[in-house]
Amino acid sequence: MSILIKNVLVGGKERDIYIEGNLIEAISEAGNGKEAEFVVNGKDKAAIPGLFNAHTHAAMTLLRGYADDMQLQAWLSTKIWPVEARMTEDDVYWGTKLACLEMIKSGTTFFNDMYWHWRGNARAVTESGIRAALSAVFIDGFDGARAKEQMKRNETLYEESKKLPERIIFMLGPHAIYTVSEESLCWVRDFADKHDLLVHIHLSETEEEVEDCIKRYGMRPVEFLDSIRFLSPGTIACHCIHLSRKEIELLKKRDVKIVHIPASNMKLASGRMPYEALKRAGLQSNIALGTDGCASNNNLDMFEEMKIASLFQKAFSGNPTSLPANEIFELATRNAAEMFRLNSGIIAEGKLADVVLLDLKKVELVPNHNLISNIVYSANGSCVDTVICDGKILMEGRKVEGEEEIKEKAKEVAYKLTNSNG
Amino acid sequence: MSILIKNVLVGGKERDIYIEGNLIEAISEAGNGKEAEFVVNGKDKAAIPGLFNAHTHAAMTLLRGYADDMQLQAWLSTKIWPVEARMTEDDVYWGTKLACLEMIKSGTTFFNDMYWHWRGNARAVTESGIRAALSAVFIDGFDGARAKEQMKRNETLYEESKKLPERIIFMLGPHAIYTVSEESLCWVRDFADKHDLLVHIHLSETEEEVEDCIKRYGMRPVEFLDSIRFLSPGTIACHCIHLSRKEIELLKKRDVKIVHIPASNMKLASGRMPYEALKRAGLQSNIALGTDGCASNNNLDMFEEMKIASLFQKAFSGNPTSLPANEIFELATRNAAEMFRLNSGIIAEGKLADVVLLDLKKVELVPNHNLISNIVYSANGSCVDTVICDGKILMEGRKVEGEEEIKEKAKEVAYKLTNSNG
Repeated sequence: MSILIKNVLVGGKERDIYIEGNLIEAISEAGNGKEAEFVVNGKDKAAIPGLFNAHTHAAMTLLRGYADDMQLQAWLSTKIWPVEARMTEDDVYWGTKLACLEMIKSGTTFFNDMYWHWRGNARAVTESGIRAALSAVFIDGFDGARAKEQMKRNETLYEESKKLPERIIFMLGPHAIYTVSEESLCWVRDFADKHDLLVHIHLSETEEEVEDCIKRYGMRPVEFLDSIRFLSPGTIACHCIHLSRKEIELLKKRDVKIVHIPASNMKLASGRMPYEALKRAGLQSNIALGTDGCASNNNLDMFEEMKIASLFQKAFSGNPTSLPANEIFELATRNAAEMFRLNSGIIAEGKLADVVLLDLKKVELVPNHNLISNIVYSANGSCVDTVICDGKILMEGRKVEGEEEIKEKAKEVAYKLTNSNG
Repeated sequence: MSILIKNVLVGGKERDIYIEGNLIEAISEAGNGKEAEFVVNGKDKAAIPGLFNAHTHAAMTLLRGYADDMQLQAWLSTKIWPVEARMTEDDVYWGTKLACLEMIKSGTTFFNDMYWHWRGNARAVTESGIRAALSAVFIDGFDGARAKEQMKRNETLYEESKKLPERIIFMLGPHAIYTVSEESLCWVRDFADKHDLLVHIHLSETEEEVEDCIKRYGMRPVEFLDSIRFLSPGTIACHCIHLSRKEIELLKKRDVKIVHIPASNMKLASGRMPYEALKRAGLQSNIALGTDGCASNNNLDMFEEMKIASLFQKAFSGNPTSLPANEIFELATRNAAEMFRLNSGIIAEGKLADVVLLDLKKVELVPNHNLISNIVYSANGSCVDTVICDGKILMEGRKVEGEEEIKEKAKEVAYKLTNSNG
């Protein structure tokens, strides 16, 4: 399959983008693009790389607005966990379908997920056409039998994943150090090492996690993980809020990857990832950006997330020059591509054809003194007109195939799960 | 003129809303609405009051993305002020037209403005159909001649304003205590008192303002304003970040109105309005919400502003129950209506017909466990389908009359002002 995007702005210049298979084959002066099976009119549009949501729990779209404005523990134990316990694979399938739809409509072409019922998740991603790294929640509750079961399950899913489209990456998902035993963490480390897999973990999200870790292991979370040789360049550590100077040095030494999740951290008052300190330690290009699940955000709009990230860092550091527009845009594109070992994150020849076209006629993008500033500080997901992922057109003129059915089914499933009428 | 909105959700129930002239005349069971000249299909839509943007500088849409990520003083003196000095009345007219368009498209039907070239501003609002309180920037720079000029100008504009549509409120706009002399502040106080006018002022936005005030007057800003009997229930004080306990008590005692402006305060790292402390002092219903101008936000989307406000307060207070969804929604509707003495801010019989219809099929609003949560934490301005203000349909199906011309002309003016090519 081939696609020609005509007269589209790339880095401020009008260009033709020619896509063959799943790659950007050529970017040429406008009017010089090769003939293609599909032609997309890029006039008054700008091409940017598809955005990367580096941490979410996609199927939690089903719980959007179900419970807010609560203390973390009460929220989890009285609201979120009871509903999750009732979820079936089919529920997760529809929840993820809804999430993929929302991401496509807001210009996200990759997400990194950790959730229950992996197969439902994978089925939805396969159908949606977007790219994802999927991990099954690995929790053993420090119980040997549960640990064995989880290991077995991950071995099985890993084998199954080989039959899925290449745009789905299998990852391991040890939930956190307070829910997974040392033995299981070591198993994850070895299995990841053996099969060259990335590992997705929540790390240092709350002060309680740090205190509990010191009680249990006599060390802080990052120190503990380092002591069992868990940390590596393939570790994707989400949140990373409560870090000592020594822990920041360890993250740098092991080349650990970090995901900043500002809206969720603010909504749950968990604290703030110390962006400036990580940057000073040389970790800037190791950081990506995520939304978390819709129960704690409550949407998957990466445009909004970029703005919130920058404002959060500026406000907390007292420095209005912190995390400027161009840096946060890199967190949401190039840094993430590198983190997930994808040949993408920029619009250039030879890169994966994960391309988003912004509608420059949207009022939020007028005037266009500085496109990156407009993207970060003014736009929202509705400024996206067209989404191409892996060389296929997933949305054009804001229309996505099957949208109505997905919304109807997801609503049905959500109301059944929560015993409500919407 | 009469409008019938059929089968629309009002407070979770399907209703018909009948509008006659500029008032909501009746809300009845669906199917029972009176016949009207215009019929709007409200199926799969929810009616909410038009949102109130309680502090902005509308024409600064022209400077959206022109300068970001800078220290406040450098940003103002090298970027913003030089461009503002070149602005003409016609520039302000087109900038405000663009702002009104953006506000209509994101469900805002009222804004409170302070800017240069009042007549250009008023002309744009008159044409746009939305409601606004407009003040001319009053700055005398502690210069007696300039002060006289400003007083004269305000007297003239006040007289002119009487000929404008009733939906435009004339207000006085003394910029701040560090730009306006005590004599002029007293003149403003007396002129407002004589003509029963509201007064719009920036107050305690930065620490520098507080320090300078102590140096100049030997008192903190709120104390100083109280000492000259400036504070009254008609004072609309914007920002209110750096407040002592005594100042909070004074604000309560004088029943001063307060506007919270979170995105701008975060972006410029100015600090945070102490919401919980103001609430404890009994000022909760005195607080409204604003976006500030597009040079420091960079959009006018009140949906986004509600979310940022709530996240900001939660993150800074460390309390995830702070400023919950229902409270922030009141800041953006009911509290503001009261502040500006408007018979609106809720959907009810006898209220002004300032009505916004949300498209419940937008993916961000699915599922709909809790509409207010979805509005505050998930929606953005693009979820708005229809906007009615003062009994007139300003947008239906996201179409606004004259949109293309406004965007083209505003771009032209913006690029000319900044000597750029866009």
